[in-house]
Amino acid sequence: MVGLAVRRWCAPVLGLPALASAGEYLARRGELGWREVTERFLAGAGVGTWLVDTGFVPEPPLAGLGVGVEREVVRVEAVAEGVAAEGESGRGLLAGIRAELRRRAAGAVGLKTVVGYRCGLRVPGVAPTDHEAQRAGERWCRATLANPAQQAEGASGARGVRLTEPVLLHWLVHEAALVCAELGLPLQVHTGFGDPDLRLREVDPALLSDFVESKPDTTVVLLHCWPYHRNAAYLAHVYGNVVVDIGLMVPFVGARTGEVLAEVLELAPFDAVVYSSDGRALPETHYLGAKLFRHHCGLLLDEWIADGIITAADAERLAHGIGAGTAARIYQLT
Amino acid sequence: MVGLAVRRWCAPVLGLPALASAGEYLARRGELGWREVTERFLAGAGVGTWLVDTGFVPEPPLAGLGVGVEREVVRVEAVAEGVAAEGESGRGLLAGIRAELRRRAAGAVGLKTVVGYRCGLRVPGVAPTDHEAQRAGERWCRATLANPAQQAEGASGARGVRLTEPVLLHWLVHEAALVCAELGLPLQVHTGFGDPDLRLREVDPALLSDFVESKPDTTVVLLHCWPYHRNAAYLAHVYGNVVVDIGLMVPFVGARTGEVLAEVLELAPFDAVVYSSDGRALPETHYLGAKLFRHHCGLLLDEWIADGIITAADAERLAHGIGAGTAARIYQLT
Amino acid sequence: MVGLAVRRWCAPVLGLPALASAGEYLARRGELGWREVTERFLAGAGVGTWLVDTGFVPEPPLAGLGVGVEREVVRVEAVAEGVAAEGESGRGLLAGIRAELRRRAAGAVGLKTVVGYRCGLRVPGVAPTDHEAQRAGERWCRATLANPAQQAEGASGARGVRLTEPVLLHWLVHEAALVCAELGLPLQVHTGFGDPDLRLREVDPALLSDFVESKPDTTVVLLHCWPYHRNAAYLAHVYGNVVVDIGLMVPFVGARTGEVLAEVLELAPFDAVVYSSDGRALPETHYLGAKLFRHHCGLLLDEWIADGIITAADAERLAHGIGAGTAARIYQLT
Repeated sequence: MVGLAVRRWCAPVLGLPALASAGEYLARRGELGWREVTERFLAGAGVGTWLVDTGFVPEPPLAGLGVGVEREVVRVEAVAEGVAAEGESGRGLLAGIRAELRRRAAGAVGLKTVVGYRCGLRVPGVAPTDHEAQRAGERWCRATLANPAQQAEGASGARGVRLTEPVLLHWLVHEAALVCAELGLPLQVHTGFGDPDLRLREVDPALLSDFVESKPDTTVVLLHCWPYHRNAAYLAHVYGNVVVDIGLMVPFVGARTGEVLAEVLELAPFDAVVYSSDGRALPETHYLGAKLFRHHCGLLLDEWIADGIITAADAERLAHGIGAGTAARIYQLT
Repeated sequence: MVGLAVRRWCAPVLGLPALASAGEYLARRGELGWREVTERFLAGAGVGTWLVDTGFVPEPPLAGLGVGVEREVVRVEAVAEGVAAEGESGRGLLAGIRAELRRRAAGAVGLKTVVGYRCGLRVPGVAPTDHEAQRAGERWCRATLANPAQQAEGASGARGVRLTEPVLLHWLVHEAALVCAELGLPLQVHTGFGDPDLRLREVDPALLSDFVESKPDTTVVLLHCWPYHRNAAYLAHVYGNVVVDIGLMVPFVGARTGEVLAEVLELAPFDAVVYSSDGRALPETHYLGAKLFRHHCGLLLDEWIADGIITAADAERLAHGIGAGTAARIYQLT
Repeated sequence: MVGLAVRRWCAPVLGLPALASAGEYLARRGELGWREVTERFLAGAGVGTWLVDTGFVPEPPLAGLGVGVEREVVRVEAVAEGVAAEGESGRGLLAGIRAELRRRAAGAVGLKTVVGYRCGLRVPGVAPTDHEAQRAGERWCRATLANPAQQAEGASGARGVRLTEPVLLHWLVHEAALVCAELGLPLQVHTGFGDPDLRLREVDPALLSDFVESKPDTTVVLLHCWPYHRNAAYLAHVYGNVVVDIGLMVPFVGARTGEVLAEVLELAPFDAVVYSSDGRALPETHYLGAKLFRHHCGLLLDEWIADGIITAADAERLAHGIGAGTAARIYQLT
């Protein structure tokens, strides 16, 4: 499906007819060169502010490409791994993580956790104590020292040591939520499908109920969600601090974006749904996310207007909210 | 979505244009007064017989409003809590619950359990023994005496002490099923989404397989079900004693009612699906349930007729069955 | 739904108008006689090669009916049960199963497991050792001898003793995967809905992640999948050795086939999806599977072509791939 979407939507940006073949596409892409291609797709995405997760494989800054403002989302597992990599352990590890989280958060628009990849989303409603977290940190440091092969593996983005110790991860996620509440930042959580190093049933966002209920002052943004997007919508329905970000679903489900979005809107409050491209590596992914969302959200709302379900003015408000307004509010973009 | 549905369908009942703004709606509602508004919506719902769950926050009887017959559905947790509140414990508690269940059931059209809210739907296929249930009752009474703060809390409707002891709950649900089988009444089970005091994954109706299989002589009505409505349809497909009630889904999913109903009809036998409004607190909810069901079920069947999937006569039979006939049969309404 | 589909699609094959009543249908069927009816439906299905699971209730061979080639899929639980029924136990049981699996596989186009029915799909990524499997085999033989009533029960197809011992089952499934990898055959796994002797939540294909990840050289075909077909699509997306077979879904969901197929195609690579009829007992089931798939896959692709989502040439390639080409490749049909 993603291949069809590239051929349909990206080919015309390179001056080819829609649905040009993969061969024609790659040839044309080579002719234009990476810089021209990147500039066309990033400009074509029509994105004003890029919220960039900097904790995965580092990518070159967008700044030089003249395509809008770039703001940072800090991945909390990368922060913890960085502190550990500098040799901190025991009490120093917790104190170091706390300090570094606050330092990094001060310059960011949000924090993000990939705890689902590391040990699933059954984050308890009560944080582990510092004592428990410290002992978990010691287990982790010992295990990592004993097994250097564990370092630097995994598609979910760890560099150096990879934090997979559940108790320390749960402590970290609770700590991140506290930092977010203090600074008025949202906490993003990867949920639903992704790379093979997760287990699908362990990343059902419904598993987060106890956690989100325990942190009413932290806005929790559920990313991606598919195929559990209805469960994510349920959380947004019952908890005022939960937002559903359809993210990664859009470029992947392609022509099915309208149907999947409609399933989310069955129960999620309209002002608790946001778009993101989850683009990565190839500039096409940024463009596709934006284009597919606009196209299929537009078709869905046209149908609703035609059927008398919504007024044109409300539909416009809804589209602007999902596409930009709600994100501007929760990330405090100004 | 529910807000759009109110503006679309309820506004005209108050003499406003469809999709009038929330402000206009509230102003007009205030002008008309609660009695006029209630009478319009209840009459507009076109409901002949109201099956009312009397175990939640009590509401005034509908009788005075001249809008059809009212029949009672008895919530079994409220019965058990009532017996305990009168001081019964030990063997007296079980005997008291048994007697009161039968007494109340004799005047009712069905029993209902909210066990999913209290400890999830993993009800075992074999009932706890009286001895086990008695010991569980003692634990519950001691815990409640020790912690009076536990009393009267929870959105799922307990008044006074709140029964959350799993073993006693499982005993109670099995006992209720026996009473239903004796009297030819169905047992309603809350499944799927609801208030924040449930955990979504624990109310998947698929968890009820052992229980419904163990009670072939009791008709079990699965209420609400979303987002697990396909799982509910599966149970109705494999167990002849299971009925799917789309209930609460309808007013909430609004314009998506047709799609959700179609997902249920993928596998559920057509004569094992029933409509209910699950209306509560506001008379709009009763009207919306009825109106949305009629509108979207009608659109779905029109499409099926146009596509040659079903004859007009069979579609009519199907609509009447889901809307009224099947409920009249299983609740023995005459 | 299946009843409507029979009336719509099968009635014309018997010379009746579409949507003839059930009474007319049965009368006409009786007039024509079983042989004529069977020949019409099997020929009408337009199937070139029949892949027949021979481990369930035996059916007469199709050969005499002149409707295409018949190839065998061997049910591995039936193989193990056959070896045990001949009195093998201890080390002899494992050796016997190994030998018989290879002997039967040599004449077949694939192996199949119904482990989901027997103990769910939580097959570990690491096979039990021979020692563990041998002890499990001894437990099973003792239990079966002690309880002859357990023999021959169950709708999932055991004849004689029924293998339900989890450790031996896990060993068997791993062994079957090795045989498949050696011979270049795919391993079919029943997932999703079926008869009442399974538990729905235990047959979610997502539970197979560890297993399919551990066997990259074995093509694993997930059969049926509904209502977890999106989870099956996810596995096909992340694991190159996974194929989704929409099988049993099609005749059951009937007019909803297009929607269910579209949900699968949201994430599954197009060349990792295959059709099968899962027909059984009545020849109508074979015809329905083929007819419904062709009709609704065609409608879906027509819509996609009209919306500019796919070219006509690619749509044709996709339909041929799901309908026959991909199966011909993975089952090495020549």
